[in-house]
Amino acid sequence: MTEGGKEIERLIELMARLPGLGPRSARRAVLALIKKREMLMDPLARALAEVAATVRECEICGNIGTGPRCAICLDPKRSDTELCVVEDVADLWAMERGRSFRGRYHVLGGVLSALDGVGPDELRIPRLIARVEEGAIAEVILALNATVDGQTTAHYIADQLESLPVELTSLAQGVPVGGELDYLDDGTISAALRARKRL
Amino acid sequence: MTEGGKEIERLIELMARLPGLGPRSARRAVLALIKKREMLMDPLARALAEVAATVRECEICGNIGTGPRCAICLDPKRSDTELCVVEDVADLWAMERGRSFRGRYHVLGGVLSALDGVGPDELRIPRLIARVEEGAIAEVILALNATVDGQTTAHYIADQLESLPVELTSLAQGVPVGGELDYLDDGTISAALRARKRL
Ligand SMILES: [Zn+2]
Ligand SMILES: [Zn+2]
Repeated sequence: MTEGGKEIERLIELMARLPGLGPRSARRAVLALIKKREMLMDPLARALAEVAATVRECEICGNIGTGPRCAICLDPKRSDTELCVVEDVADLWAMERGRSFRGRYHVLGGVLSALDGVGPDELRIPRLIARVEEGAIAEVILALNATVDGQTTAHYIADQLESLPVELTSLAQGVPVGGELDYLDDGTISAALRARKRL
Repeated sequence: MTEGGKEIERLIELMARLPGLGPRSARRAVLALIKKREMLMDPLARALAEVAATVRECEICGNIGTGPRCAICLDPKRSDTELCVVEDVADLWAMERGRSFRGRYHVLGGVLSALDGVGPDELRIPRLIARVEEGAIAEVILALNATVDGQTTAHYIADQLESLPVELTSLAQGVPVGGELDYLDDGTISAALRARKRL
């Protein structure tokens, strides 16, 4: 109980559900918002409503954007022959921060996991195979996390694409064992991309 | 650049201004919001807009609430004879979590600070003196942080109230030197309140 009224209680409760925030930091965040109503709370409320109203998944790659196709898929300056496969949008953003990949992406939406009951059809794997079968892609770069499930998923995808005329590579040097892309610095990701090896 | 569109950029930038969130955790929070649009993003946007539209400072004590007077000032079951003075609303909430104080509050809105140019008139100190002069309050409990500025402020208030027929106490046992109320566990605050000593 904060004695701040049920609207404020509710706001704290919702903020506390965000990753990285607990009840205490949610309370502090809400007090900061209230103190900076015009500079922070009002703009944040508007930005949230705007994103909630406009954000959607790209129909091609699974990235998020504000139209049927994302900014990357629509960018005419990017190469159609290189396709980078990532687990989720956070990893796509991490790759982009590396600033060295200029092809297209495919966001799986997770990794295969027997434990969590995630099979190929729960991910964007059938759609990946279909994209490769269209024939324009020359190289598929698997930029999956160096976790057990990430590597299982990479092997599964490699098997599925084996019969297709596409070069299959993966990020290599620089990704630490058990490491997650989104926690790496930008230079490490660039180095791993440059040193990518054939599977 | 996240390639997520300028609306998403803007949302991340605003989230990153919250205490406890940096650019990376703001990105993660925004992705979590987008993933849980109906369960989290929409309710959070509504809750923020509602709080932004309704929250205000209590005209009596400086607590926040949704009317001219806060829930604590309006509560008929609380004692009018005990007044607890705190630095800010976070400290009031921390006191309330201790569940042992059943009087009223006075939120100063900060502490005296020569360095930051904060004098008595920048705080709710004149209003505190006026409340005490009204005569209903028998005891003023100073629940200020055990910091240099907090203790300077306590001494200043003690001087100002000296000539008035009111008992002046402060939280004692349990508040560590340099400690801030909002970081203490609830039991420590209760113990400090119970062992409060006369100034
Ligand atoms: Zn796309
Ligand atoms: Zn009040």
